[in-house]
This record gives sequence, structure tokens and C-alpha cells, in this order.
Amino acid sequence: MIIDEPFDAPAIIAAKRDRQALQDDEIDWVVDAFTRDVVAPEQMSALAMAILLNGMDRREIARWTAAMIASGERMDFSGLSRPTADKHSTGGVGDKITLPLAPLVAACGVAVPQLSGRGLGHTGGTLDKLESIPGWRADVSNEEMLAQLEDVGAVICAAGAGLAPADKKLYALRDVTGTVEAIPLIASSIMSKKIAEGTGALVLDVKVGSGAFMKTEADARELAETMVALGTDAGVRTVALLTGMSVPLGLTAGNALEVRESIEVLAGGGPDDVVQLTLALAREMLAAAGRDDVDPADALADGRAMDVWRRMIGAQGGDPDAALPTARETHVVTAETSGTVEQVEAMAVGLAAWRLGAGRSRPGEAVQAGAGVELHVRPGDEVSAGDPLLTLHTDTPERFGRALAALEGGLVVGTGSAPEQSVVIDRIG
Amino acid sequence: MIIDEPFDAPAIIAAKRDRQALQDDEIDWVVDAFTRDVVAPEQMSALAMAILLNGMDRREIARWTAAMIASGERMDFSGLSRPTADKHSTGGVGDKITLPLAPLVAACGVAVPQLSGRGLGHTGGTLDKLESIPGWRADVSNEEMLAQLEDVGAVICAAGAGLAPADKKLYALRDVTGTVEAIPLIASSIMSKKIAEGTGALVLDVKVGSGAFMKTEADARELAETMVALGTDAGVRTVALLTGMSVPLGLTAGNALEVRESIEVLAGGGPDDVVQLTLALAREMLAAAGRDDVDPADALADGRAMDVWRRMIGAQGGDPDAALPTARETHVVTAETSGTVEQVEAMAVGLAAWRLGAGRSRPGEAVQAGAGVELHVRPGDEVSAGDPLLTLHTDTPERFGRALAALEGGLVVGTGSAPEQSVVIDRIG
Repeated sequence: MIIDEPFDAPAIIAAKRDRQALQDDEIDWVVDAFTRDVVAPEQMSALAMAILLNGMDRREIARWTAAMIASGERMDFSGLSRPTADKHSTGGVGDKITLPLAPLVAACGVAVPQLSGRGLGHTGGTLDKLESIPGWRADVSNEEMLAQLEDVGAVICAAGAGLAPADKKLYALRDVTGTVEAIPLIASSIMSKKIAEGTGALVLDVKVGSGAFMKTEADARELAETMVALGTDAGVRTVALLTGMSVPLGLTAGNALEVRESIEVLAGGGPDDVVQLTLALAREMLAAAGRDDVDPADALADGRAMDVWRRMIGAQGGDPDAALPTARETHVVTAETSGTVEQVEAMAVGLAAWRLGAGRSRPGEAVQAGAGVELHVRPGDEVSAGDPLLTLHTDTPERFGRALAALEGGLVVGTGSAPEQSVVIDRIG
Repeated sequence: MIIDEPFDAPAIIAAKRDRQALQDDEIDWVVDAFTRDVVAPEQMSALAMAILLNGMDRREIARWTAAMIASGERMDFSGLSRPTADKHSTGGVGDKITLPLAPLVAACGVAVPQLSGRGLGHTGGTLDKLESIPGWRADVSNEEMLAQLEDVGAVICAAGAGLAPADKKLYALRDVTGTVEAIPLIASSIMSKKIAEGTGALVLDVKVGSGAFMKTEADARELAETMVALGTDAGVRTVALLTGMSVPLGLTAGNALEVRESIEVLAGGGPDDVVQLTLALAREMLAAAGRDDVDPADALADGRAMDVWRRMIGAQGGDPDAALPTARETHVVTAETSGTVEQVEAMAVGLAAWRLGAGRSRPGEAVQAGAGVELHVRPGDEVSAGDPLLTLHTDTPERFGRALAALEGGLVVGTGSAPEQSVVIDRIG
């Protein structure tokens, strides 16, 4: 046992390994000591694996979340002239919803303090997408954030280093140690940031399906219920939607490609599923913030959401009128036979976009603004042999081969039918 | 994925996390890459926890062992004029058997290349015990080891850095990450060193009981069977004895105290259980080395084993005639009531000896040569109120309190009877 420390990391790891519940003071200590570099990364990763395999009860998860919040600063938006609501998605392919959603909700009178992340793996990152807009910057001070929320009503930016530093450190560790997929750790990671951020209301978009972290509805439901309980107990009005992620959202996966599609939605167009999900989440955010008298469809139709978008992008240095970057090379995949599009598999499209250069394999790597996948068909569409199915975009054409390999089996044209993907499966909270 | 590496550590961790068997080439790579610092400690500890909780099949364990052997050099004793046999104990309280056993077997014509370790936790280390002999040194070069084996017939020394370096690195990691108690990792750790060491025969003393790593006979049996199969497949004649470890072996736990008791055994005396186990293991080693024509009891009775002991200690700089160090302070625990000694719990005695200074809490810490516990009674003995039960020894009397706390409940005098501990429970192989 290390002198002057009240606990011993191996004993805490062994307790969870042996399926015991960790005590409150053990959790407080291990999170704090990990932040202070007293608990070593190799100890925390072993504990994370034990948590992943042996679980945590609700009390443990709540305490773990509180300990991560206590590791850093808390923000406070109570001085704003309007209520606040935030949204978090557990991540999916083509999930650009934050881009139209934040200005839409702001246009309806509720401020949106949206702290976002960068992408790692097959799902893109909101900040990576916005950084494809010339001039736009993700880093905003707490003071600038407050001013922009008061003035524009919406801000999408990187979380400052002061917010839940234990979570930042733990997330980076989980990412390289196969311990991302633990419901207690996912729930506490998301909720510690959102509670510390100080939002008044929170809507969770919990993805379920082959392209999501949660492959089954049961897992997604457990995660959603856990997070709703954590938020509610912390005084944040929290609801969750379970939404489908077996097929990509919309017709694009990739940074600038998704910005383009988001602008189409803000202009009153865009793919049906993206519009539907944006409106469903906007209604939940407005209701949770006490503004269920407002219909967000109006703000989309009359251009108010687009106005907020332009001001939001401009406030962070971006030029909303600048042309978006495009990839240097494209490759069109066509149908080999005539028939019905039976499947457009989200994971396959996400991996292809990643391999084309839209995502990164390790933190800090640059991404290609123009890279990604553009779909020309949706499940259920009828196609003739030779019709274009999708277009691959990249600056580095040597990547086409690996992207096509990722798509193998994920895009099926046949004589059968396509299962319908529900945009919203259920509501929890 | 790291450029130029054929595998990706998170994917291998995730496979074991998801209960898949690891492939041969994945195992080869992860052990090698860990040795090369390409797989980080936090990745290996997460994998170790996944192995602990989800297990490994026999093929995986055999491959893991082979990969650890391949990480370093192999020794070769085939040029010696006599056969070799080695013994390994999984560790118990008061387990000083190696000390009388190695010279005894050597006195019977079989060479004993005994690579040993230092203690960590509640069980002592053979090298720590021998280092209480003035002048004795544990570090011996490979050449010195060979010469001593030819000349004296027995050597007890530290394993060189070149032998299974992957195991050394992994063991240090497991020790601080709650991942020691994994049967696949224990078996591969022990057997990789013993196979790389190049012994012709190996006898495993697998302890079972409250003072052992394996608390149940089923676990001990599984570990024993796993190791016997690994040794046999590698061409080492291997047998295992399951032996009791709910009560300490003999009447002493502590470094110099155990050397004293070992010398008593070599002189033809000593506690019954120590003598019995020494002879049982000696007979197995001799049989495995093809010398079952020799009775080791004769070599103990006629002083030949003691002669080899004196030459073995002298060859490594030790003075076999020097007085052994004793602790500065002692404290006698007496019986509060008259009755039968119902229990002398091995773990309690081991922890008490550790806290008195006989063991270390972290690698590299110094141990006290004289510290430990001396028992005056065994389970089943009749005592009167006021009779001495045990004596605590330490140089630092402020440790008495914590040692007494460790003994609480472990030493029971009552009106019942004491369960008999079998010295040898079963033989496997």
C-alpha cells in the first residue's frame, strides 16, 4: 500500500474482478488517484476490463459519475436569459444531426451549449465535420461560449480541458484497451461531461443496430435507462430516444459531405430520415426546456434555423458562404444486376468512409475534409444494372481498394425486400 | 493499426473480452510486441484481466507459454554428467522445502538447477531466505551455474535476465493489476521459465488451501493438470503433487527462521510435515530423473544431504557455520484458555510474518532477515491457559500490533477437534 493513500489499487481491482460492488469511498479514491497519476494506466485499464465484464450497479455508476464530475470544473448557464438544452448521440454512421439541430432549437428560443468531440473509428466527429467549413474553429473559451449562447443561442465547440479531466484521461485509455463497450463506463463518461457542462435539459440519442456501439435493443435500452437515471438524479431534465442505426442516416458519411447535407436540411430539403430525426430531437429538447408550445418544423420551413446556423458558424470564424472542400478523386460503384436494394449496411459504409480518409486511426491524426461515401440509393429502392449505387470520395485514390473491401457484402441488390428502419424506436424518460 | 505490425492490440483484447479463442499468430505477436514495448502495459493488463475472467483453452495456453519461452534464451544442461530435476512450488506459508530438498536430491545423484524468486505478499521467497545466511549471494552466471551443478550437484539462484523476459515483464504487471490469480497466466509463467531453464524433469508442488493462491482442490487440480500437460508436451518429464496449505508448513515462517528449520531437517530432525513433504518431492524428482532405485531417506539420515548443503552454500559465498541473524525483539502470544488447538490458519500466519518485516510490499524493498513467526503448537495439540502458542520476531516492535491483528481469529483454542491436514493430497501426471 502506498503511504498516505487510503486505498490500494490492486485490492480495488481484485474486488471488482471478484464481482463485488465497489464502495463509495473506493470509487472516489480510484477516480481521483487516477487523475493524480497515483493509480497507473495499467491498473485503471485492468479495472475497466473488470467493470466491462462484471458490471456495476446503479449506485456504483452514479458514484463513479460524481467522482468524474468532481475531478474538474463545472459550468453554469443559469445566468442566461433563456433555458438551455443539449443533445448527445452515442454515435452512428452519417449522424450529422447536431449540425441542423443546434441552430433549429436555438431558433425556437432555447439555448444549445453543445460540447462535441472528434471522431475515432468508424463514426465521424461533429468537430471534424464543422472544421471542413473554411475558417471555423472548435476552440472557444468559457466566456466566449457564454456570450455566443446569449447572442446567437447556439454553440458547437470542443469541451475545455477543465471539464471532467478524469473522463478525458479514462476515455483515451479505454480507446486503446478494448474497454470502450462497457455500459457503466459509457454512461458515466457521457453523463459526467453533460452534468458538469451545466445544461438544464438533455436529450440522449441512443443508437441501436449494426452500425452503433449498442448492437441490440436490450443493451441500448439499458444504456438509455442508466443515463436518464443519472441525469435525473443530478437535476438535469433528461430523456432518451432509441433510434435506428443499421442503415446510415441520410445519404452522406464524411465531413464536408455531411455539412452539405445538413445545410440542405436547414434549407428545407434533405433526406427524410435526417429531417424526421432532427425534428423529433428538437421537440424533445424544447419540451425538456419547457418550450413545448413551439413547433420546430416552422423554424425549419421559414428559414429561422438557417439564419441561426449562419450566425453560429460566423461567430466561430467560419464563412457560411464559402464553397465546401471536395475530394480530388471519386469512384462510382454501380449495380451489377437489376433488382431491389435489400441492404445498405451502416457499419460497412462507416468503415469505407473511415478508410477513405474521413476518420482517424489514432488521436491527433488529420482527417480529409472531402473524403467519404455518398449514397445514391436507400434500402427498398429499385435499380437497374449499371445504375450508380454510391460514390466514394478521397484525396488519396490508393484508398479506394480498402474502402471497396469494407463495402463487400454491405450493399446488397437482390430480388427480396428491404426491412424498414424505424427512425425512432422508443422514448425513455 | 500501427504501420508494419500485423495485428492491432485493441482487436486482440476485444476478441478475448468477447470470449473468443486467440489464434496462434495473434498470441505470438502480442507476447513479442509486449516484450518490444509495442503493446503498452495498459493494453497487456486489460488483456490479462480478460484472460483471467474469460479463460484460455489448452491450445492457447501452450502457445502463450511457447511465445514467452521464445522471448529469451534457453539453457541446456544436457552436457552434464548426471540427469537434472527441478521443483517448483506455487507458494505457501512456511514453505522452505527447496532448501533441504535441492541438496538432498543432489546427494542422491540427480543435479538440481533451482531458479528461484523473491517474495512478494504473504508467501516468502526462497532467495530472501537464503540471503539471511551471511555472505550468500543469489546471482550466479550461467557458466557458474553449470560448473556448480557439475561440481556440487545443486544450485539455488536467481533466474538470469535472459530467461523468458516476457514473463518477467508480465509478472511485474500482473502483480500490480489484480491479475495474478489467472490459471492460464500462472501456468504459462511457471512453465515458460522451467522449460526455458532446460531441466530434464520437473516436479510441481501445487498448494491448495486457505494459505495458497488456489483455495479449492478443483482449481489446484486444473492448474496442476495444465502445467503437467505443458511440461510433457515440451519434452520435460513432469509430475505434480497437490499438497495441503491451510496450516503453515513446519513451525516457522520468516527468512532466517526457515533456514534454521531447514538445517534441522538436513540434520535428521525437524517437523514431521516438512520431512514428509521433502521426502515425497525428492522421491518424485528422483523417479522422474530415472533414479527411483535410490531412497532419499538414507541420504538424509547419513548426513550426505547436509554435506551437499554446506558445499552448495559455500559455493555461492555463504558461510554454513555462521550464526544466523535473529530479530532484535520478540513477543510471545500465550493461550487465554486451556483446550485443544483447533486452528492455526496459514494465511493469518503468513500475513503476520509479512507485517513483521519478513516480506515486502513492493519489488526491491529490503526484508528483515530475522523477522517472522515461530509456532510452538500445531493443530490438535492440547494447551493450558498461559502456555506459549507462538513467538513473533521483528527488528521493529511497532509492527507487533499489525501482526497481532493479522492473527486475529487465525489461532483458535477450544473444546473441539482439529481437522488433519494431508501433506500430499494427490499426485497428477
